[in-house]
Amino acid sequence: MSRLFNFCAGPSTLPRSVLDQAQQDFLDWNNLGASVMEISHRSKPFIEIAQQAEQDLRDLLNVPDNYKVLFLQGGAYGQFSGIPLNLLGTHTQIDLIETGTWSEKAAQCAANYAKVNILATTAAQKYTTLPDLSNIQASSESAYVFYCSNETINGVEFQDTPVILKCANNTQPDLVADMSSNILSRKINVADYGLIFAGAQKNIGPSGLVLVIVREDLLDRAHIHTPDVFNYAMQAQNGSMLNTPPTFSWYMVGLVFKWLKANGGIAAIEKVNIQKANALYKTIDESDFYSNPIAIEARSRMNVPFILKDESLNARFIAQAKDAGLINLEGHRMVGGMRASIYNAMPLDGVLTLCEFMRHFEKTS
Amino acid sequence: MSRLFNFCAGPSTLPRSVLDQAQQDFLDWNNLGASVMEISHRSKPFIEIAQQAEQDLRDLLNVPDNYKVLFLQGGAYGQFSGIPLNLLGTHTQIDLIETGTWSEKAAQCAANYAKVNILATTAAQKYTTLPDLSNIQASSESAYVFYCSNETINGVEFQDTPVILKCANNTQPDLVADMSSNILSRKINVADYGLIFAGAQKNIGPSGLVLVIVREDLLDRAHIHTPDVFNYAMQAQNGSMLNTPPTFSWYMVGLVFKWLKANGGIAAIEKVNIQKANALYKTIDESDFYSNPIAIEARSRMNVPFILKDESLNARFIAQAKDAGLINLEGHRMVGGMRASIYNAMPLDGVLTLCEFMRHFEKTS
Repeated sequence: MSRLFNFCAGPSTLPRSVLDQAQQDFLDWNNLGASVMEISHRSKPFIEIAQQAEQDLRDLLNVPDNYKVLFLQGGAYGQFSGIPLNLLGTHTQIDLIETGTWSEKAAQCAANYAKVNILATTAAQKYTTLPDLSNIQASSESAYVFYCSNETINGVEFQDTPVILKCANNTQPDLVADMSSNILSRKINVADYGLIFAGAQKNIGPSGLVLVIVREDLLDRAHIHTPDVFNYAMQAQNGSMLNTPPTFSWYMVGLVFKWLKANGGIAAIEKVNIQKANALYKTIDESDFYSNPIAIEARSRMNVPFILKDESLNARFIAQAKDAGLINLEGHRMVGGMRASIYNAMPLDGVLTLCEFMRHFEKTS
Repeated sequence: MSRLFNFCAGPSTLPRSVLDQAQQDFLDWNNLGASVMEISHRSKPFIEIAQQAEQDLRDLLNVPDNYKVLFLQGGAYGQFSGIPLNLLGTHTQIDLIETGTWSEKAAQCAANYAKVNILATTAAQKYTTLPDLSNIQASSESAYVFYCSNETINGVEFQDTPVILKCANNTQPDLVADMSSNILSRKINVADYGLIFAGAQKNIGPSGLVLVIVREDLLDRAHIHTPDVFNYAMQAQNGSMLNTPPTFSWYMVGLVFKWLKANGGIAAIEKVNIQKANALYKTIDESDFYSNPIAIEARSRMNVPFILKDESLNARFIAQAKDAGLINLEGHRMVGGMRASIYNAMPLDGVLTLCEFMRHFEKTS
């Protein structure tokens, strides 16, 4: 048994104590005589797990009472379709801020349902920065403004909720945020959003579950073609159990929420995340050997892509990193180079070990 | 640690050896230094798991080469929408055989997309039997004929592929089967079907994954509103990895397929399933104390509902069964009474212990 520091972008490393507990209870959960994955989602013990997980998430994010929290399937990608299906209502257009691969993908999916008005894009900068939104005005025709708070592949992250100017008719379209790769890593104000969604497999738990946090007044406008399992109103009425939910994933995210609370919640983990990101970017910036292509103010705390000056050393870097106990540092196939994903569950020690390795590799290469 | 015989209808009991192996490898799979749920779905080790699982399923069911096997999210319930979205094409109608709660639900979902023509129904018999299909003719207007091969809640099961007469124009619409609760429990001929689907949480693995086996020529007709993650053609082109799949569930179903193969495949498990069902129905039929409401030729091998003559004994039955190591025998809330779900992973010994308990309870009550 040897656990390595795992920088995978997703599915990602989980807290050691969470894995230990799940392993220990794997064959017999809570003296039920069965694994937690072998009991009915409608049984009292599972409903308690499910409700506790929701309550812990509400506590962690201070979710206002007029927001529903849904635990769904189909990933964040599924929500690229689920959101227009549920939220368009009588609208035929959405606004979208394009900052990288995932917001691009969201735009493509939404185009099957509506006209997608690109409010701002950094495509010309190859998504290495964030757009200036100071003079950007939402469209009065749009059902909502969509953006991605952290682009996992490109490594750019909004440091605050984007502020969009009101429409010409003085209304403010709701903000819809894909927070798949930075939810629970920093403080947010849920009330700033109409809808927040996040695939689980980065900061929340194993893959196979997606969180949707949606303001109640947005629940009543689903298109007739919306699959029931994606229908927010129907799932909200049924406690996200319209159909059999991914029970083991739900159990695991519940353990992750408990771990986060026990460790001081968002405020505490955000401090560690800042330390981790600062240490890694400092290592990169102090060197001529490594570089990060992202504008400093747009840099992600979660996903840190970096390039070796001499790309022919990539394979050796990966091999020696593995020998040093550091795995899954290969960059995304669309970007190349290296990428260290340093989500909540990556301990500071893991990042410091990576920084030390990088300095050592530079010296000896 | 004490494992009990668990008769839950779903999520259901899993083979002990599968759970043991998953537990053992939980923190470090295959010496990777990480859990199997912490690695990229696009990594070489995970792709090997995924492809092996598909191959093992193809071997078990003799899936012809012109069928795609997809591993999707959203459950069988999601496919109640996914199937009409993908298969209707230019049609505006489907045929459906209504035999219980799940085919009823499928009809309701399909009605959001098409006219649903009920070819035959046993609603008037409260779903305690199967319809006579000998004079039933498919509609030439229908895109396909939908049925559910085993009704989990009602306890009726088709013993063979239903034969529907050709349409008036001498064509034969494709058969679409919900096999969620009896797939891999008995021999089937995949080529009889246009599409077979099955939620994992009964005979296949944990919840959160649904199998779709679909003939290739049906892949090219998805409605523009089909969510990408439900789009069979897109998922087939991407090896079911258009988006991050539920990796841990996929790994677990792979272990279940290996377990089935190691134990002689479908032919061997079907023999055991017949033994199990015969033993339980015999216990019921030989008694005046228990009864099963289903017509003998329509009885399910997988889900055996039964009623105590004196319903006031229900709570004591459940309590004493638990003391005897037998859990989750409560009937479905819509049907009441008791239900023993005896899927592949329930050993013969579990059913024999239940039969003995039932005889003992009858004598002492």
